[in-house]
Amino acid sequence: MVRYIEVKSRARTEFIDISTEVREMVRSAGIKSGVCHLFVLHTTAGITVNEGADAAVQRDISTFLAKLVPIDPYFTHREGNSDAHIKSSLVGTSLTLMVENCRLILGTWQAVYFCEFDGPRPRRVAVKIVADD
Amino acid sequence: MVRYIEVKSRARTEFIDISTEVREMVRSAGIKSGVCHLFVLHTTAGITVNEGADAAVQRDISTFLAKLVPIDPYFTHREGNSDAHIKSSLVGTSLTLMVENCRLILGTWQAVYFCEFDGPRPRRVAVKIVADD
Amino acid sequence: MVRYIEVKSRARTEFIDISTEVREMVRSAGIKSGVCHLFVLHTTAGITVNEGADAAVQRDISTFLAKLVPIDPYFTHREGNSDAHIKSSLVGTSLTLMVENCRLILGTWQAVYFCEFDGPRPRRVAVKIVADD
Repeated sequence: MVRYIEVKSRARTEFIDISTEVREMVRSAGIKSGVCHLFVLHTTAGITVNEGADAAVQRDISTFLAKLVPIDPYFTHREGNSDAHIKSSLVGTSLTLMVENCRLILGTWQAVYFCEFDGPRPRRVAVKIVADD
Repeated sequence: MVRYIEVKSRARTEFIDISTEVREMVRSAGIKSGVCHLFVLHTTAGITVNEGADAAVQRDISTFLAKLVPIDPYFTHREGNSDAHIKSSLVGTSLTLMVENCRLILGTWQAVYFCEFDGPRPRRVAVKIVADD
Repeated sequence: MVRYIEVKSRARTEFIDISTEVREMVRSAGIKSGVCHLFVLHTTAGITVNEGADAAVQRDISTFLAKLVPIDPYFTHREGNSDAHIKSSLVGTSLTLMVENCRLILGTWQAVYFCEFDGPRPRRVAVKIVADD
């Protein structure tokens, strides 16, 4: 069964830590081992795993992406948010994590981030947890 | 069982919407729910999900990537297509989608794109559909 | 069951071909068909599929990423390795491959690379092989 994490971004660009929500879904699915697929249902957002301990890391990634993909005059998409579409394809919208002993497998410093590139908006991440066997 | 989507690119750089082919494979697999794994079998191409409604978006992504990764003299790979290899690793070659109620789960504006970075060539995308249970 | 590939990087930036280790895990899992999920447990490393035949390709990707994401003074993360975190999110930490007829499905020129962006360090890649049925 596919479930959804609802995210409410508050700025044009924002990295939102959804590790707690993903862990809660794994727990409520009640599986011992398996995989957890995550998929962002939007074309101007992404999903990534990166450091959760120091907020400066997310800020540095955001700042870098803003400099890398400026809102440039050569873009032809009329909505004026081509930079957000480009960031979405660079960061990606799909992620597969593993579950073992009822727990999500993440490295010590890893957190799961929803990456908003064209907010603020309400957003949705599809979650599908598949048990082994 | 792994099946293949055959793609025929017609330019050096081209984003080809393969959503119809992917949906057709999901339909013919006859599954109610599960996942659909996609994998590009080439090192100078990629796969991404992005806007399918306005063709300007794909054009802007292509244009941006061409500016970001020029065919530069400092590259050492003799075939002269290092830019295409780099774009492949930035965009990625692997994608996992979800299936529910016999349908592929995609957001309203999302389409699946095969990304050609060193065409024109015949290309292949491996597709593996795994049903729940 | 989740198993781990141990990687020992020997430079700050290094692409390490782990195709042999991944194939060995698939073989020892003894499955005929299924999928092989790979996940990097670190926030300053990544995983990608790219050309394995000519070492110049990996070198060109590394060189490009080093120019693209310099160790810049505007980064605020105190450890001074924000460039490595950024490269990790650009390249990605998650990969799903397919297995058929007991073999990993890879294109003729494809190899699986662990991408070190802040070495030298001992590193781990989680591997989960799921058989069909």
